[in-house]
Amino acid sequence: MTNTGQSDLVVPPSPDGPPTRVLSIASHVVSGYVGNTVATFVMQLLGLEVCSLNTVQFSNHTGYGKWTGTKIPSTEIDALYEGLKNNELADFDMLATGYVPGAEGLEAVGRIAKDLKESGGGESGTRFFWVLDPVMGDSGKLYVSETVIPIYKGLLPLADLITPNQYEVEWLTGIKLTSPADVSNALSKFHADFKTPHIIISSVQSLVNKNEYVCFGSSMTTTGKPRAFSIAVPMLQGPFVGTGDMFASLLVSRFRHAAADAGLLETPNWMSSDSVIATELPLARAAEMVLASMDKVLKKTGIERDKKVKSLDEGDHGNNAQLKRARYMRAAELRLVSCVEEIRSPVVKYTAKEFKNGVLQA
Amino acid sequence: MTNTGQSDLVVPPSPDGPPTRVLSIASHVVSGYVGNTVATFVMQLLGLEVCSLNTVQFSNHTGYGKWTGTKIPSTEIDALYEGLKNNELADFDMLATGYVPGAEGLEAVGRIAKDLKESGGGESGTRFFWVLDPVMGDSGKLYVSETVIPIYKGLLPLADLITPNQYEVEWLTGIKLTSPADVSNALSKFHADFKTPHIIISSVQSLVNKNEYVCFGSSMTTTGKPRAFSIAVPMLQGPFVGTGDMFASLLVSRFRHAAADAGLLETPNWMSSDSVIATELPLARAAEMVLASMDKVLKKTGIERDKKVKSLDEGDHGNNAQLKRARYMRAAELRLVSCVEEIRSPVVKYTAKEFKNGVLQA
Repeated sequence: MTNTGQSDLVVPPSPDGPPTRVLSIASHVVSGYVGNTVATFVMQLLGLEVCSLNTVQFSNHTGYGKWTGTKIPSTEIDALYEGLKNNELADFDMLATGYVPGAEGLEAVGRIAKDLKESGGGESGTRFFWVLDPVMGDSGKLYVSETVIPIYKGLLPLADLITPNQYEVEWLTGIKLTSPADVSNALSKFHADFKTPHIIISSVQSLVNKNEYVCFGSSMTTTGKPRAFSIAVPMLQGPFVGTGDMFASLLVSRFRHAAADAGLLETPNWMSSDSVIATELPLARAAEMVLASMDKVLKKTGIERDKKVKSLDEGDHGNNAQLKRARYMRAAELRLVSCVEEIRSPVVKYTAKEFKNGVLQA
Repeated sequence: MTNTGQSDLVVPPSPDGPPTRVLSIASHVVSGYVGNTVATFVMQLLGLEVCSLNTVQFSNHTGYGKWTGTKIPSTEIDALYEGLKNNELADFDMLATGYVPGAEGLEAVGRIAKDLKESGGGESGTRFFWVLDPVMGDSGKLYVSETVIPIYKGLLPLADLITPNQYEVEWLTGIKLTSPADVSNALSKFHADFKTPHIIISSVQSLVNKNEYVCFGSSMTTTGKPRAFSIAVPMLQGPFVGTGDMFASLLVSRFRHAAADAGLLETPNWMSSDSVIATELPLARAAEMVLASMDKVLKKTGIERDKKVKSLDEGDHGNNAQLKRARYMRAAELRLVSCVEEIRSPVVKYTAKEFKNGVLQA
């Protein structure tokens, strides 16, 4: 298949990408979509062999207010990994980690990451790569204990790509994001202080236009300088749940594909040479694909949620505040299984622009 | 979209089917494909909202000889279901159950099935439907305790569709399958003794042609008589693992779609009227689709397994028999994530024939 030069005749790439074996450590809920119930399906749809290690099994996510189920002890995380190693099943190309309950669990994840980093990579011969989503909180609310934060800071230098949200950036860098210049400083700080090769801040409420949000990313140069880009996306009316998990798992898949296309899978940290400009980075290519899928899935979710919410608004919930909360929570669950094509073959609509010296391009 | 009558112009049906919420109770392994790691992905690909309740979390399946992880206690199965009920999340259209470790766990599953049967069905207003895969053993080997068998016999009258293999049929009916007439008797016995509306025996080593295996199915009439069909499929060289789980989860999805196409979802047990002949049953349509996908996935799995096995045969395993066993086991894992299209849009190759009076049609 050749690119004919006519963009409308370009054959779309296979949604499956290169052979990839990924260990995904996150939570599991029986009903609904957060953590591994999002990540597993999304990454499988994009061709990754996903090994899901579930840190909890809950009936539903905690936003419902009530739930049942248990966290697994950190010793069990260690044991499951040992079981994989004993059978030579721990030859992972990638590690993806999301919400981990508590300091001990996070330390167990850190031990696994170190061990995988040392063992070097998977059967495919490509460099081991860790995508760390430092799940700590959102919208001004911390949902892990403060004791977890120094552990995350200790782990950041091991990660190849991190995907903090605005709030998590503020906790990790100490920089409050009130202007594009602040974002620029935070990206520089991650590269400088934690040697983080790749960073994506999935969504910052736009500091320019209130009807959009901006995704920022940067892959550092050999001298540790940022190569930053921004992608502006129209704001969709929330509430949504599990969007951070969907973003991270799409990014794991799309960055793997983009790095393969650029021939970088055997390069340490999949780092592009310094001659590659920000908007040509595999990370920028990947983020564009991720945001294209996000936009489609969230639009579908929003339409169906609003229909449901309308009938809930008209309904009678008696005096049961808990049940009322649960009904609205359920209405907002991601619509994933009806979005197979949107996840596998999205059309890019929002493209990356260079983000230099803290100045956002219109 | 209209059927033009020219078969090469027929627009393929959507792979997604009607809105369906299914509770899938089975085991989970971090690496590889058995139980819910097969069922969840397969059913999601076919448009079902899958709520996966994992009865165990193991590092890998037990065929490797060594594994780590734990079974969840039966009280935890009860608790997770209670958590769903408390949030009105237990409004399932379907229940799919596979391997359940031990008698107490199976009793917990029975309680859930009874409760769902009484509550009647999901939000979509369709009849609740239970697909019970009575996982007890295979190829002459029981892998549950014998105490489980009377519990299964007690649960069969609650199930709408059961999917036993040859060995499980023999345990449940007491009839040894040595001729087509024996199969016919076993199908009749399930309908008569357990009032099971629909039965599929996924694979019986052909009693006629050694190069094929035969899938048998029957949906009973209002008078409890079988309407049986058979589908002969060329034998593929094993070993395979997880095929029973793949068959059952494809069937859950395809029978839902076929029953919807026939307008039967609000009919008790999705039962076709007595005028429908065996080869026109929704169950026959579903089984044809299931076997088409199975054939494609198993062929791909077999080719990649054989390549891997060849290099293992030439390799050195030292004196480590356990590691050798693990390597061959891994080589035989199902190739699922590279088979999205084969699962969503298979082309039917093997069609159902009437199976009457114990006589197999050529």
